[in-house]
Amino acid sequence: MIESVNNEKIKKTAKLNDKKYQDIENKFIIEGKHLVEEALKKGVLEEIFLIKDEDIDFKNKTFVSEKVMRKLSTLTSIPNILGVAKKINEGNIVGNVLMLDGIKDPGNMGTIIRSCTAFNIDTLVISKDSISIYNPKVLRASEGMIFNQNIVIADLENVLDNLKDYTIYTTDVNGGEDLKDIKFSKKNAIIIGSEASGVKDTIKKYADKKLYIKMDPLCESLNAGVSASIIMYELNNKI
Amino acid sequence: MIESVNNEKIKKTAKLNDKKYQDIENKFIIEGKHLVEEALKKGVLEEIFLIKDEDIDFKNKTFVSEKVMRKLSTLTSIPNILGVAKKINEGNIVGNVLMLDGIKDPGNMGTIIRSCTAFNIDTLVISKDSISIYNPKVLRASEGMIFNQNIVIADLENVLDNLKDYTIYTTDVNGGEDLKDIKFSKKNAIIIGSEASGVKDTIKKYADKKLYIKMDPLCESLNAGVSASIIMYELNNKI
Repeated sequence: MIESVNNEKIKKTAKLNDKKYQDIENKFIIEGKHLVEEALKKGVLEEIFLIKDEDIDFKNKTFVSEKVMRKLSTLTSIPNILGVAKKINEGNIVGNVLMLDGIKDPGNMGTIIRSCTAFNIDTLVISKDSISIYNPKVLRASEGMIFNQNIVIADLENVLDNLKDYTIYTTDVNGGEDLKDIKFSKKNAIIIGSEASGVKDTIKKYADKKLYIKMDPLCESLNAGVSASIIMYELNNKI
Repeated sequence: MIESVNNEKIKKTAKLNDKKYQDIENKFIIEGKHLVEEALKKGVLEEIFLIKDEDIDFKNKTFVSEKVMRKLSTLTSIPNILGVAKKINEGNIVGNVLMLDGIKDPGNMGTIIRSCTAFNIDTLVISKDSISIYNPKVLRASEGMIFNQNIVIADLENVLDNLKDYTIYTTDVNGGEDLKDIKFSKKNAIIIGSEASGVKDTIKKYADKKLYIKMDPLCESLNAGVSASIIMYELNNKI
């Protein structure tokens, strides 16, 4: 059992809470049994750290003290188990696509990843100015679906320039076609804008259609995770 | 301008970040111009504290130093303006009802309040073990819709005992009727369970129908704010 927070392995692992080291090492930390199990299922789990043993079929276990777990964890209430996983390999852009243009809130990002898997989005494309998918709060809010979802981090303009046979949609609170009435195409790409400022003008110009979710005018807009999820729900039901 | 954090008015106001004092004083703090404006529109704004003046038509202004604002605010990046508002008067249970059974996450609670207003829910009933609607993170996530939404905080069993002419729905990830196929009644009450454990058994037994949102089995469930919002979206479109 490792009891010292100055242990080299612990110091090195703790650095993986920092985006810079995640990028250098190509690894990230996942906290709690559910996320560890999802990483294990996906074959990207590298090692686990535990306070007490858990019923988990994985060899590379290191037992640590509560104090060491506190050093590794970002949670105020520390988990019993925490793992190191290899970063996800980025896939190709296929099928129906959801694109995120500058989503900043970790809860929204995690929720959207979770809804993408739930509603069969084939590719989630995330702009480089969005929050990192390896942020601990994103990982938790994704409920481990980060390991099941095809994700591409990219410059949206580059991607859009190459989406030739797609119908491209953006949301618009000021009008557009009611989501209920939309007839989706064979290949759809839906762009969701940032919480604060929506879809950037440089991105908006790619849209073939504007989508509108019917709502009471007292409420100016929906939460970004909610509007993305409602659109994915409709797409999943209509295709 | 008040520059001392030991000023009696400031000390008294800062206490309103604490649920106990909110209940005693029947007041709460709202941070940022958007929430202050929504409170003003609703006629529940009592006073405002500002670092620099804002274009806002309200008499009871107190200018404070940044240090004092830091004492009053819960945000790491302090706002320029912050207000004290009277707590919302609870309304009656009318029309279509959404019921929350132990929602704990402030982001989810705020998002649900926002979606309730967007999708014309007449009454939001919140169980006493849910997070307080006056929590600063709830207020922010609600985007001020707390001031537009009819909200009742109550014991759900008591409410359900009296919902005689309603059709009562719960969500069920293990089956039930597909939300898409549901024919809503004249008066509907939809129960949303907590993030960790769903709808309590003592509440579940009141349900006339179970609702299911069709999704990929890889994803076990949706975020509570997302499922609540999708159901409200469908209800708003179908009635």
